[in-house]
Amino acid sequence: MGTLNDKQAQLLLDKNFASIATVNADGSPHVTPVWVDWDGEAVLVNTLRGRVKERNITRHPRVEVLVYNLENPYQYVRVSGHAELVEESAEEHIDTLTKKYLGEDRYPWRASGDTRVIVRVRPERVSDQGIE
Amino acid sequence: MGTLNDKQAQLLLDKNFASIATVNADGSPHVTPVWVDWDGEAVLVNTLRGRVKERNITRHPRVEVLVYNLENPYQYVRVSGHAELVEESAEEHIDTLTKKYLGEDRYPWRASGDTRVIVRVRPERVSDQGIE
Repeated sequence: MGTLNDKQAQLLLDKNFASIATVNADGSPHVTPVWVDWDGEAVLVNTLRGRVKERNITRHPRVEVLVYNLENPYQYVRVSGHAELVEESAEEHIDTLTKKYLGEDRYPWRASGDTRVIVRVRPERVSDQGIE
Repeated sequence: MGTLNDKQAQLLLDKNFASIATVNADGSPHVTPVWVDWDGEAVLVNTLRGRVKERNITRHPRVEVLVYNLENPYQYVRVSGHAELVEESAEEHIDTLTKKYLGEDRYPWRASGDTRVIVRVRPERVSDQGIE
């Protein structure tokens, strides 16, 4: 497994957005914007059971995550790996992301019946640009 | 073929960045940040022969392009389609993009032996969020 160096990690810890790429059932690529987090070991994204990216990952766990600096998009970090889907603590985790991105304590768009999952990606390959 | 409405198109005409997703030879997804343009009919990206995304598209032309507003990432448009690779006018096109993104007349990083191509994606499926 690889890891991120401090400057790469910082890009994920800052309030930047990630584009997560997965592969659809028909083999075509899918990319979607998400909130993102780094726990020191893995890139963390949060989604719902049943979403396209969740179904794609269940079928084919390889993903690539791109995060660029909103204030300077020429700085980016890209991580690829096999994603794990984790239900445990996924509700707390969406609140953590809500705090980071919206400054609120609770995720405001909860709906009954939603099952949240953490998409956990330990870096297998990392590349970056403009980060030094 | 689909198209973009004026507000979706504007997001591409503004100085925003795109994430273009393709599929690698081993079936894993690839995503890379690029300058982007809209010619009224197709999403245009510019790359070099031999780059990973170019090789991926040659093998498997299905792509998905995500553009979000750098000033408000909750606004995004996503376009999927089959990409065509076009060498004609690709050198002029990189200068057009340079003007848009850097404010300069000529692309400053030309290297001898580089063959530029336009990645042309006519929208087959379009989705957006936060654009109204």
